[in-house]
Amino acid sequence: MYYPEPISKLIDSFMKLPGIGPKTAVRLAFFVLDMEDDDVVDFAKALVRAKRELNYCEICGHITDQKICHICQDPNRDETVICVVEDSRDVIAMEKMREYNGKYHVLHGSISPVDGLGPEDINIASLIKRLKDSNVEEIILATNPNVEGEATAMYISRLVKPSGIKTTRIAHGLPVGGDLEYADEVTLAKSLEGRREL
Amino acid sequence: MYYPEPISKLIDSFMKLPGIGPKTAVRLAFFVLDMEDDDVVDFAKALVRAKRELNYCEICGHITDQKICHICQDPNRDETVICVVEDSRDVIAMEKMREYNGKYHVLHGSISPVDGLGPEDINIASLIKRLKDSNVEEIILATNPNVEGEATAMYISRLVKPSGIKTTRIAHGLPVGGDLEYADEVTLAKSLEGRREL
Repeated sequence: MYYPEPISKLIDSFMKLPGIGPKTAVRLAFFVLDMEDDDVVDFAKALVRAKRELNYCEICGHITDQKICHICQDPNRDETVICVVEDSRDVIAMEKMREYNGKYHVLHGSISPVDGLGPEDINIASLIKRLKDSNVEEIILATNPNVEGEATAMYISRLVKPSGIKTTRIAHGLPVGGDLEYADEVTLAKSLEGRREL
Repeated sequence: MYYPEPISKLIDSFMKLPGIGPKTAVRLAFFVLDMEDDDVVDFAKALVRAKRELNYCEICGHITDQKICHICQDPNRDETVICVVEDSRDVIAMEKMREYNGKYHVLHGSISPVDGLGPEDINIASLIKRLKDSNVEEIILATNPNVEGEATAMYISRLVKPSGIKTTRIAHGLPVGGDLEYADEVTLAKSLEGRREL
């Protein structure tokens, strides 16, 4: 009621975003008023375009603006390895590493009974379908190293095992640059358990 | 290069906002993808509308979607008092208090030689013009209590004095709910200097 309607609408829109409270929303809305006209129009277009043009790859579930994502389309990538991740952002994180040349499968979540999410709520069925009549030799389970991620990895591993395809789990241990003193007990135990001969 | 173009454009747009770095921008962009279609379109419209329909009141400089803001238009408000603030958000803060019934004048900044902003860069000339042939009796200088705000208040006060109009400055002192122990020396000195008989 204190703001003219066009700006209070904009404040409301900003407040729908995660981590943005009333004060930040006001700050952002007033910032927009001082932006160049073109930048604001570009911002508005980018919002609508991102929502309209992006969808999930029909094969792996990664975000793309085509039917099949550029990774699934790439003939130079190793078809015998599939890395299973929870989120499209995890694909980006893996890609930025520049060490992995296989394919991906994006689950869009993890098995989480607390949140009422079972195996049928995430993208697992399409993974199993994808493995049939394929030449996949290894599935790398790169779900997050938390309770839900572990449960999801375990579930998929059991599901895949009968087919004879190797399933592996990414290593747990101390992060590079970390400090032994400040590591939690579980991580430390995992890093001891996963020790390797030099 | 790792993201499909529509989402990288959206990430770029978010990164232009203040206080939003690359990681937050990615998080917000992915959040937008999960939003309802209608909410995204509303957001885009709100951006363009706010930028297009809002302008500054021709009299006081407060933000409005009309030529003259609702405060300047209101016949019930006391025309003999003008409260001078730096920003439209300060007007909103004053209005929320529900204690002030005069008019406003928004400077859109403060005199700040460090940033190369002189008196001619802020909305002072229109204030002086507004005072001519008016029935204004008091000007309350409510610029921010920092170096630039004080300098601006001082400047305006000197400019207005010859006309015989009373100029006042909002009180400095301890904020309500504050703690004497943690107050800085300057604030404490100001609160002592401004003490009043009970």
